Amino acid sequence: MFEQPIPTLRRDGDAVLILDQTALPFRSETLRLATLADAARAIRDMQVRGAPLIGATAAHGVALALLHDSSDAALEHALQALAATRPTAVNLHWALARMATLLRPLPAADRLAAAWAEAEAIRADDAATCDAIGRHGLKLIETIAARRPGPVRLMTHCNAGWLATCGAGTALAPVYAAQAAGIAVEVFVSETRPRNQGLLTAWELAAAGVPHTLIADNAAGLLLMRGEIDLVITGADRIAANGDTANKVGTWLKALAAQASGVPFYIAAPHSTLDFGCADGPSIPIEDRGAAELCMLRGIDASGGLAALRQAAPGTHAANPAFDITPASLITAIITERGIAAPGQLAGLYPEAAR
Amino acid sequence: MFEQPIPTLRRDGDAVLILDQTALPFRSETLRLATLADAARAIRDMQVRGAPLIGATAAHGVALALLHDSSDAALEHALQALAATRPTAVNLHWALARMATLLRPLPAADRLAAAWAEAEAIRADDAATCDAIGRHGLKLIETIAARRPGPVRLMTHCNAGWLATCGAGTALAPVYAAQAAGIAVEVFVSETRPRNQGLLTAWELAAAGVPHTLIADNAAGLLLMRGEIDLVITGADRIAANGDTANKVGTWLKALAAQASGVPFYIAAPHSTLDFGCADGPSIPIEDRGAAELCMLRGIDASGGLAALRQAAPGTHAANPAFDITPASLITAIITERGIAAPGQLAGLYPEAAR
Repeated sequence: MFEQPIPTLRRDGDAVLILDQTALPFRSETLRLATLADAARAIRDMQVRGAPLIGATAAHGVALALLHDSSDAALEHALQALAATRPTAVNLHWALARMATLLRPLPAADRLAAAWAEAEAIRADDAATCDAIGRHGLKLIETIAARRPGPVRLMTHCNAGWLATCGAGTALAPVYAAQAAGIAVEVFVSETRPRNQGLLTAWELAAAGVPHTLIADNAAGLLLMRGEIDLVITGADRIAANGDTANKVGTWLKALAAQASGVPFYIAAPHSTLDFGCADGPSIPIEDRGAAELCMLRGIDASGGLAALRQAAPGTHAANPAFDITPASLITAIITERGIAAPGQLAGLYPEAAR
Repeated sequence: MFEQPIPTLRRDGDAVLILDQTALPFRSETLRLATLADAARAIRDMQVRGAPLIGATAAHGVALALLHDSSDAALEHALQALAATRPTAVNLHWALARMATLLRPLPAADRLAAAWAEAEAIRADDAATCDAIGRHGLKLIETIAARRPGPVRLMTHCNAGWLATCGAGTALAPVYAAQAAGIAVEVFVSETRPRNQGLLTAWELAAAGVPHTLIADNAAGLLLMRGEIDLVITGADRIAANGDTANKVGTWLKALAAQASGVPFYIAAPHSTLDFGCADGPSIPIEDRGAAELCMLRGIDASGGLAALRQAAPGTHAANPAFDITPASLITAIITERGIAAPGQLAGLYPEAAR
């Protein structure tokens, strides 16, 4: 089992400790969440991010909400407040639905203990799920490594490593599995504007001793065209029934360039990212985040950058959609904890969810 | 004729004044180039940038080199030093070849005056060329405007406006022509990491009163997929004989997304960007620029950002190719000063150059 160097999320008595991802990679700071409002803000402001970790944090937020009031009203308020934090990652709604199903029928007096236990189960399940994704994805890396000498060159987008989960990560779980198996992997990390989550990926790969190269998002195409990448693996925020996948904005551009270059493009995601109730990509809600995220760099005051731009160019508007849709036709396969399947064939792996 | 709000380049006696584009959009500063070394540094460090403006600056750099020594040796040294500044934009080599062809046969005593005159001719030609590109490109915008109400929504990449030329620009020349013709245009401007030339585009559009929206490079795909863009126009740094085009890194990703979305994708470029001696895209040299450009923002110390990253993530490498190749098959047409042609049909417009 993969051991997180610093836990992304853990219970501490009547509170929850998270690693504040807005301070990384420049400062490693732990935040204490004591209330529902703390948990909702942590998700909304991306102090925690990554679809699986958002789900686990929401589950813990329900427990925090019930600390002093475990009435029906308090429970429903918590579920609604947490559901409203971010629209695209379906893991959030999956975790809240799991909490609701368990807690609603219980007497109020039993809810708090049950909420903590279920939140912990979600956390532990996610860690085990990441390990399984790593084992399945490792086979893809082994196949490439057997074909030619030198490190396997893997491109990713955003951060879908241990920082995005309660375990080894999704897209990076196969990388850590390969490292454990003694297979050399080099990871190409795109900056992932506007929030530069690529720097989180660089930071966690550096900490793990995995060779990696940071590139501008714009450079991903040329590297693929030149034959310098063996495979692409990204995470996902929601996978529709037909296999269309919402992930961090810019993912579709990499998938297009991978297909044009004959490079396989994989999505790695747990069952909590599957949304069989959503027919296809266009049905997935896409979050628009504020203009302030543009012109920011991690570790540098964001408002300063945008304020300076607007002083220099008054009248400049900004649009900032946080996700895009990669059509199933561009996805070679999806790596889940139950195995690897073509994007339209996920119902075969998860018949109980697809019903 | 389009009037530049601030001249990008002009002779001032025995010197050349340029607008320092590394300070924009936050500070508008004029730099005085007095020597060959000044001109070479201005190109290399991107105090001037944009393929047509690089060519004109190089021509003026030859004149500066001859100020105190117009011998054969001094001329050849200047041509070599300027040619070595940047590898991809062919306009640089086109301008130097034009200077060499004129100056080499002349007696040394006649060279300085001839160099200044030829540099000025290159500057003036470029301004006229931009106007002609604007007139031809305007027809494309008029056609879209006639088809449906509301502003024509044009996406561009990097900066190919007046800042990139001695006139109205290349990709933005049709925008300014449309503005003059009373046709509403909204421009979607991608940041253009790592050097954020999109902020130059936002600045010049703001100054001209053209509505515009800044987006992360990653967001270009989603906007195209959603049908929110009517056409894409970018500039070019070199167009090969078969129509394959080198332009700022990230251009290919936009072209892929445009084709997948059924949105026309145009290149706007003058004759000096055509390289009939280069058979195809893979023959075009691609400049690799230093890692320090990653993790920088305009107006914020670049070395600080990278130093901070490397402290946080020791062992992080960076790759920074400055251009990519858009295959001719993705280019709807190329807008030149002689008209609009399919990418493989440029020899029909420029028979004398294609010979």
